[in-house]
Amino acid sequence: MGRAHAQAFRAAAFTFDLPAEPELDCIADIDEQRAAQAALSLGFRRSTGDWRKVVTDPAIDLVAIATPNILHAPIALAAMEAGKAVYCEKPLAARFEDSEQMMRAATARGVANGVGFTYLHNPMIQFARELVASGEIGEITGFRGVHAEDFMADPEAPFNWRCEPENAGGALADIGSHIVSLALHLAGGIESVSGALSTIHTHRRGRDGVERLVNVDDQMDAVVRFKNGATGVLAASWIASGRKMGLAFELTGTRGAISFTQERLNELQLFRAHGPSHSRGFVRIEAGVSHGDYAAFCPASGHQLGYNDLKTIEVKEMIHAIHGLPSLNKDFRFGLDVERVAEAIRTSHHSQTWANVA
Amino acid sequence: MGRAHAQAFRAAAFTFDLPAEPELDCIADIDEQRAAQAALSLGFRRSTGDWRKVVTDPAIDLVAIATPNILHAPIALAAMEAGKAVYCEKPLAARFEDSEQMMRAATARGVANGVGFTYLHNPMIQFARELVASGEIGEITGFRGVHAEDFMADPEAPFNWRCEPENAGGALADIGSHIVSLALHLAGGIESVSGALSTIHTHRRGRDGVERLVNVDDQMDAVVRFKNGATGVLAASWIASGRKMGLAFELTGTRGAISFTQERLNELQLFRAHGPSHSRGFVRIEAGVSHGDYAAFCPASGHQLGYNDLKTIEVKEMIHAIHGLPSLNKDFRFGLDVERVAEAIRTSHHSQTWANVA
Amino acid sequence: MGRAHAQAFRAAAFTFDLPAEPELDCIADIDEQRAAQAALSLGFRRSTGDWRKVVTDPAIDLVAIATPNILHAPIALAAMEAGKAVYCEKPLAARFEDSEQMMRAATARGVANGVGFTYLHNPMIQFARELVASGEIGEITGFRGVHAEDFMADPEAPFNWRCEPENAGGALADIGSHIVSLALHLAGGIESVSGALSTIHTHRRGRDGVERLVNVDDQMDAVVRFKNGATGVLAASWIASGRKMGLAFELTGTRGAISFTQERLNELQLFRAHGPSHSRGFVRIEAGVSHGDYAAFCPASGHQLGYNDLKTIEVKEMIHAIHGLPSLNKDFRFGLDVERVAEAIRTSHHSQTWANVA
Amino acid sequence: MGRAHAQAFRAAAFTFDLPAEPELDCIADIDEQRAAQAALSLGFRRSTGDWRKVVTDPAIDLVAIATPNILHAPIALAAMEAGKAVYCEKPLAARFEDSEQMMRAATARGVANGVGFTYLHNPMIQFARELVASGEIGEITGFRGVHAEDFMADPEAPFNWRCEPENAGGALADIGSHIVSLALHLAGGIESVSGALSTIHTHRRGRDGVERLVNVDDQMDAVVRFKNGATGVLAASWIASGRKMGLAFELTGTRGAISFTQERLNELQLFRAHGPSHSRGFVRIEAGVSHGDYAAFCPASGHQLGYNDLKTIEVKEMIHAIHGLPSLNKDFRFGLDVERVAEAIRTSHHSQTWANVA
Repeated sequence: MGRAHAQAFRAAAFTFDLPAEPELDCIADIDEQRAAQAALSLGFRRSTGDWRKVVTDPAIDLVAIATPNILHAPIALAAMEAGKAVYCEKPLAARFEDSEQMMRAATARGVANGVGFTYLHNPMIQFARELVASGEIGEITGFRGVHAEDFMADPEAPFNWRCEPENAGGALADIGSHIVSLALHLAGGIESVSGALSTIHTHRRGRDGVERLVNVDDQMDAVVRFKNGATGVLAASWIASGRKMGLAFELTGTRGAISFTQERLNELQLFRAHGPSHSRGFVRIEAGVSHGDYAAFCPASGHQLGYNDLKTIEVKEMIHAIHGLPSLNKDFRFGLDVERVAEAIRTSHHSQTWANVA
Repeated sequence: MGRAHAQAFRAAAFTFDLPAEPELDCIADIDEQRAAQAALSLGFRRSTGDWRKVVTDPAIDLVAIATPNILHAPIALAAMEAGKAVYCEKPLAARFEDSEQMMRAATARGVANGVGFTYLHNPMIQFARELVASGEIGEITGFRGVHAEDFMADPEAPFNWRCEPENAGGALADIGSHIVSLALHLAGGIESVSGALSTIHTHRRGRDGVERLVNVDDQMDAVVRFKNGATGVLAASWIASGRKMGLAFELTGTRGAISFTQERLNELQLFRAHGPSHSRGFVRIEAGVSHGDYAAFCPASGHQLGYNDLKTIEVKEMIHAIHGLPSLNKDFRFGLDVERVAEAIRTSHHSQTWANVA
Repeated sequence: MGRAHAQAFRAAAFTFDLPAEPELDCIADIDEQRAAQAALSLGFRRSTGDWRKVVTDPAIDLVAIATPNILHAPIALAAMEAGKAVYCEKPLAARFEDSEQMMRAATARGVANGVGFTYLHNPMIQFARELVASGEIGEITGFRGVHAEDFMADPEAPFNWRCEPENAGGALADIGSHIVSLALHLAGGIESVSGALSTIHTHRRGRDGVERLVNVDDQMDAVVRFKNGATGVLAASWIASGRKMGLAFELTGTRGAISFTQERLNELQLFRAHGPSHSRGFVRIEAGVSHGDYAAFCPASGHQLGYNDLKTIEVKEMIHAIHGLPSLNKDFRFGLDVERVAEAIRTSHHSQTWANVA
Repeated sequence: MGRAHAQAFRAAAFTFDLPAEPELDCIADIDEQRAAQAALSLGFRRSTGDWRKVVTDPAIDLVAIATPNILHAPIALAAMEAGKAVYCEKPLAARFEDSEQMMRAATARGVANGVGFTYLHNPMIQFARELVASGEIGEITGFRGVHAEDFMADPEAPFNWRCEPENAGGALADIGSHIVSLALHLAGGIESVSGALSTIHTHRRGRDGVERLVNVDDQMDAVVRFKNGATGVLAASWIASGRKMGLAFELTGTRGAISFTQERLNELQLFRAHGPSHSRGFVRIEAGVSHGDYAAFCPASGHQLGYNDLKTIEVKEMIHAIHGLPSLNKDFRFGLDVERVAEAIRTSHHSQTWANVA
């Protein structure tokens, strides 16, 4: 992910007319040698084995955090303390309380901040949001979403750091935040949830051959009520055999609907309930120059963007936010909103009843 | 639906080598004239304005019920009392207690009985069930299903009998039973549910122009736990703009997955986690002569079946059941299992907590 | 195919309000016993081992021909001679001259006649034709079509009657006529062609183990010019691995386009070049009650028709034609038009230059 | 396209471990001021208003040509004359003779050379080629391909340089080369063709309001015979309403088939004729870490590449070629092979008969 960040900062400078040219100054890794190598291969000027040196360095304006989740909070808090802008990978923090603290610190310090919900920066998702905002599909009535991957589907897949809750492991924390973020971004605030977390493979062997108890969820399933009265379901699974990037949703309104899957990220299906019934149906709209930031990458429609391009847009938005320009940057407030939903799902799971989103 | 039944009995006799040739003897409709006309157009010998005459007529062996839901129980009970086999449209009855009574009566009288979960008789669903049974996708871990239609999506759609709970109206009862039936058929028994029913359009105007309160759900959303440990979500909506027959599911196992939508009922997507990773993916399997009863309709693969063909298979299974032959007929017991899940969803909705399926 | 005919005549009477009720009177098969059995299983009153008896029987009004291609002409000619209406499977005849003779006889005798281009009776194709006729996609500029199946893809597939040209075997005659018929039906008359026939598997072993030379084409590929100035390509293959019913086309006009595949026969993709560019795209239209004869089969959209339903519509049109009612029946004239294109492709193949369609 | 080149050189250096780090030294544009601006925005050190200065500059090792087609040959020839490596956009040259001359010069000078058939560098196309090479789909028997776009579909689209043959305008030259390149890359050499070029909109108004005669083709349609005995059709159209990047093909072999469309460039459909018939079908394979260069961009499968990533791979291959490393670079020889097919199609069009590919 560090590599993806570096790529995106470089590409953003090339692709967009930014208010300031980002420079890749210093990279930190706990392994000093790895840091030095990474600096070389990714194009940083300097490197260090201690992230604390970066966050207090006066030459640094922006700290980008692509570490394991457990380090998000300490680095972000130290960086904000030092007055740096912070760009943090999702989820905001490994523990909910830490996310709250990050939000408070960001407000107190008044620093620019952003969180890496990359899929929201897809021009087709930008377009979907505009469709909703313009009333094109009417009042929102329902949202069904899922993030399904299969990287833990094999019962023999080894125990790893993602299998431990203190690392914000589990399907909900690790990938579920993506579908929650899409729900919030497109359908609006969530009021309450009833959810279940389940661990299908309760034991996994580590690479050392020792069997360990898995304390995180393989799947999350939830019913949600939105503040606007809409309802729906959210699901996440990292044992969903056959799915690599099964991040998909259908958003329904009184006058239309939008259907999307990240498996075909350059397409959006739009239904509008007008015109003669014999020619109604979902329109397959291909990404093109009239959608969001697409034209910054390709001068002609239909050429398609890839994942790294979405990351590049995200970095552009972050830099715009730092410079006080209008921006679609998703800040810590949004990141905390996502965590609040995830936390409510956990609460609901334990209480076996509905939980309000704080 | 009466027409679909008549068609299916005629076609079943032509398509399959049945143990007995069904004869369309007598049709009942509360409007005697309409009954007479229907008899003529559908090919019944006789007609009546009083269903009670049919259910006690010694010449009748099988009573097929395609009335409004509220009449299912009285007709079925009377027919079974008279020793007739009964083939009843889903849902079994408008009230849960009536469904239970029908089940008890069926057991007590020992008559053949079937319920119209037509989509389960699709050769591709027959095939899906065989895949599950043979272990082709491993242990079942998840099921995500939805039945989405849009015939009530327009807020101006008029108030009708489906808007009244005593008629088993609402999205859950009216169409939700289909996705519940698929879940039970393919993923196994459901242990508990946490569900929500929501009425988005709380008032609708009748054809007389008078505004009425709608007392049934527009949407149902639920989390479900299966007895085998799998989890998932079920949803139903009759206000899902753009969906005509959005009955779809993804069934996941430890070694594979099956994805299906009734929108493309002659296809099934199958993933199997074996072989080199570079050539894995979902296989789009087209209905053909090696799938279920397909070959009874078309001698070559790829020609496709339609809805009426599925109904025809259903009737064949019912007739086989009557004659004690091996059959995939879904009987009242299955119909009651579906109602139990629906009832648990209602209970959960009212109690705001999980409900066990009886 | 005889079975499909019988089914369709029965179902047409049930499904449509026909001007006359068809009765399955007499079935002929060269094997008298098989004929008798077929009569029993398909519901004919009588049977015979000699088709000549049928075509001259005064009790018979309509002769339906579902024999090997080589018998189409003699039966049809005899039947027309006796003043019978004739409903003949495609292709019209095994030899082009015979098709011409059939056309002349039909004109001379003034009998109703029809040819079985079943796919044209799909409500979605009826709809496509209406879209074209109404100018919805502008002036036609292009047509790309293919009929790909794989029943001869295996080099070990045995030599059979379809491997002999005198039986109208080969991909062009056997399945190519379908894509030619769609081109003519939707894009208009074809002026000239440049085509190639190729035999990839030049030898096949018969079931007797003896290797024989295959004298028919495995694939046909052609460039076509339409009379209206449009151009395009047509292809047919019976060795197209993976395709069961790969009958597909894209029809392009100055203001829109229609894309269709028989693999998803209940769908049509429609593009119209109007509205803002950001929401343009192909609309996936599902078969419903506002399309052609769909509503005669299902009262609600989205339920889908199957192959046998298309055949049922075809029979209805034939019966309408017999009774002089407005009809979409495809008559011998149309069948001959298809043969003329096929013949021009053969001529072009042999001359290695363009051939005009007669 | 100059921008895409600049992006690709920068990204290639970042993404791959190249044998040499490319430096963007000097950019030329006939408008000196535009050149200076471009240098600034694209990150070149220097700029010039005269391409001749670039091609003879001793500091320059590689000349990348992204000019109008008519300038390809003079620049490439001058650059090769000066011993530079040349990376030229497709088509090789505006006139066939110039392409031949470029090929001769490249051979004579022994300089590295490449042509921009970007779509061939898609990891899914790399994978398709490996599948073919390994015999996974058996002997190649057919190829049906099309490149359909709609940027000239509107009859009111203004006359522009692409409407003039001397600029290598027209659908065949401008976009048809892509589908020809895929045919050659995957199905092998083409022996002969029978093709037609058609100009549907024979007159277009320039931006000055003056109506001009269009001397190039709107559509190309051709039948092709491959050297290996396979046959197929190729088509190109720039008036294909609704298509933005309709570059699609189906490649058929005796034991399988590959289906692909650039509209879903991160997917490939693979059919293999083995295993039980009930579970055969096209497998939808999503781009992932085991396909070609995918992993250089994303560490996890399913994230997807975009157009610019394909260009980046192309540049990497070119640089590898310059350094004598194993490379999938498509050189002038390949570019000339494509032009030979295009030229044969033109010849065939004029002679109205088959033309051999030189």
